[in-house]
Amino acid sequence: MPRLCLNKVMSETPAPVRAYAALSQGSTPEPWQYEPRMPRADDVSIEILYCGVCHSDIHFVYDDWGISEYPVVPGHEIIGRVSAAGPDAGRFKVGDLVGVGCVVDSCRDCKTCEKGLEQYCTGGVWTYGSIDRHDGKPTYGGYSERVLVSERFVLKIPDALEPKSAAPLLCAGITTYSPLKHVGVKPGDKVGVIGMGGLGHMGIKFAKAMGAEVTLFTRSISKVEEGKRHGVDHVVISTDEAQMEAAAGSLDYILDTVPVEHDFNPYVNCLAVDGTLIVVGQLTPIEPALSAFGLILGRRSIMGSAVGGIPETQEMLDFCAEKGIACDIEMIQMQEIGAAYERMQKGDVRYRFVIDLESL
Amino acid sequence: MPRLCLNKVMSETPAPVRAYAALSQGSTPEPWQYEPRMPRADDVSIEILYCGVCHSDIHFVYDDWGISEYPVVPGHEIIGRVSAAGPDAGRFKVGDLVGVGCVVDSCRDCKTCEKGLEQYCTGGVWTYGSIDRHDGKPTYGGYSERVLVSERFVLKIPDALEPKSAAPLLCAGITTYSPLKHVGVKPGDKVGVIGMGGLGHMGIKFAKAMGAEVTLFTRSISKVEEGKRHGVDHVVISTDEAQMEAAAGSLDYILDTVPVEHDFNPYVNCLAVDGTLIVVGQLTPIEPALSAFGLILGRRSIMGSAVGGIPETQEMLDFCAEKGIACDIEMIQMQEIGAAYERMQKGDVRYRFVIDLESL
Repeated sequence: MPRLCLNKVMSETPAPVRAYAALSQGSTPEPWQYEPRMPRADDVSIEILYCGVCHSDIHFVYDDWGISEYPVVPGHEIIGRVSAAGPDAGRFKVGDLVGVGCVVDSCRDCKTCEKGLEQYCTGGVWTYGSIDRHDGKPTYGGYSERVLVSERFVLKIPDALEPKSAAPLLCAGITTYSPLKHVGVKPGDKVGVIGMGGLGHMGIKFAKAMGAEVTLFTRSISKVEEGKRHGVDHVVISTDEAQMEAAAGSLDYILDTVPVEHDFNPYVNCLAVDGTLIVVGQLTPIEPALSAFGLILGRRSIMGSAVGGIPETQEMLDFCAEKGIACDIEMIQMQEIGAAYERMQKGDVRYRFVIDLESL
Repeated sequence: MPRLCLNKVMSETPAPVRAYAALSQGSTPEPWQYEPRMPRADDVSIEILYCGVCHSDIHFVYDDWGISEYPVVPGHEIIGRVSAAGPDAGRFKVGDLVGVGCVVDSCRDCKTCEKGLEQYCTGGVWTYGSIDRHDGKPTYGGYSERVLVSERFVLKIPDALEPKSAAPLLCAGITTYSPLKHVGVKPGDKVGVIGMGGLGHMGIKFAKAMGAEVTLFTRSISKVEEGKRHGVDHVVISTDEAQMEAAAGSLDYILDTVPVEHDFNPYVNCLAVDGTLIVVGQLTPIEPALSAFGLILGRRSIMGSAVGGIPETQEMLDFCAEKGIACDIEMIQMQEIGAAYERMQKGDVRYRFVIDLESL
């Protein structure tokens, strides 16, 4: 396929982008269109094929974090094909299957960016709900026909991955892979995973693929069999005090994917000496109060982690291709997004909705 | 000096031990005596010269942790001379200058003990306020004329250290050295220390000796000059919001030595990406609620740490000898313990009281 350079596009007024947007707080995303920003020399233009639906999308639509500016076009688990590339975007050619996750820009020259941890750059730009660093326009996400992204923030999707089930890897995948990799999970380590939703089921798959012995913590007896299908070695029903007590002091790491407020202390108690509880789900303050004593008596840690940097996201995609790891998904049409949100709010999805953008 | 073997002692009823004990909750320690446990083959008998006074002593006297059994003989910063050694206590000879810290026994064969982390062994025995593993008798601390301790838990005091100012190294010293060593503080790292009491001033000295650039957080402007005397590079007045904001995101590690409830969040905000807040002072639950968001956005951690293991305590003593590090102390007589507690409760000690046991 010929390389369509963005040079030409850059000299023209870009065509409006068709999308689905929440026009006001809590309103179901509906058809809308916006004028895209002007393309830049290092941009890749991507025709979107699939977009995963993340809980953050709902938080943004409802302004749960008090930072939403409407209209909101959610979506940061984007899979698409390159339709054009700027003169400085030499890593990609037209037709390449690519992905875009949660971050589309950063300052690019701080210590954090140098380490490939763009998600922690104080000048970071999120895929939606942020402000572009250059022209001050809002960023809009993947519930849309196309997107312009600087090539530094574009991922190559390995051939071995099925495109639609790869979409949630760009957030649910990297959010769980990154901290497990960072703390150095290795064969023989004992890893707990709290919750088995979009993030949790990926955490289980990654921890198993890294060689760990995996314990699932869940409130729901109905998830025991399914957890075993995903490869968990043990299941602890977290509402059962005797089971929790039996797990005391046993785990090297616990990946806590629960997105709502919950008591961390019973899980800290399940950590071995030098164990770490990794928080990736809950963004609200930690209540009831965390026991300092529980941390001190065992040199235990609580660590937070947000998605992952761009180099690590590429590494995760390649790891998934090598190990045959994918997200379990349910495909939906763009028009079904309201019903999908309702089901997600009830925890009724196994494990990620993915929008087929052909339906837009 | 001839080696006086405990063999002989072991066949006799041991003489009572003169000590100072809190006889009931909150009562000032006063003269008391107890029947010591029978010596064992790996025991060292130590004539106590000096004993540091730790805040934990006061907590135990007041039963602040709800675990005190009276009489309580406090004291876990013990310096003394070996007066006898059992047949299996070959590491020591009569006359050796030795130390005993917070831990006097453990199961000795769990994974934690194997790693030399006896302080985290679930079968650990504390120097006072615990129950001996073998004969079920209470343990009594260093406000006394002598103590029997298994040689595994006895430290050699290097010749280069002044005995009395070495006493607080056994708790205040190791409590701050251990986590700084564990996280791997190295030249160029930026380390914050919250509070400049017994623990804090030692944390400053260790962090400096490890090559770090050290920031002291204190509420008290009066501590600025003194902090600089201990080697701090920067002082942040923690009640000054502008100073706290200027320190945001700047520190690799923060050692939090404050023993009373305080807000952790402003300090988490001062951590750089991948930074760790190390809690060694506060044992009560963490209130106000810790921000999970603050941890997540920067992959920050909160880690607890309790004293240190025996091999690491020896390493710390040798490090102090090599680097010329000692605790700043005020000597007191045993009879002054009540007044010392009162001054400690007002924060009026620079930086550790040490009891001269000759006064007993």
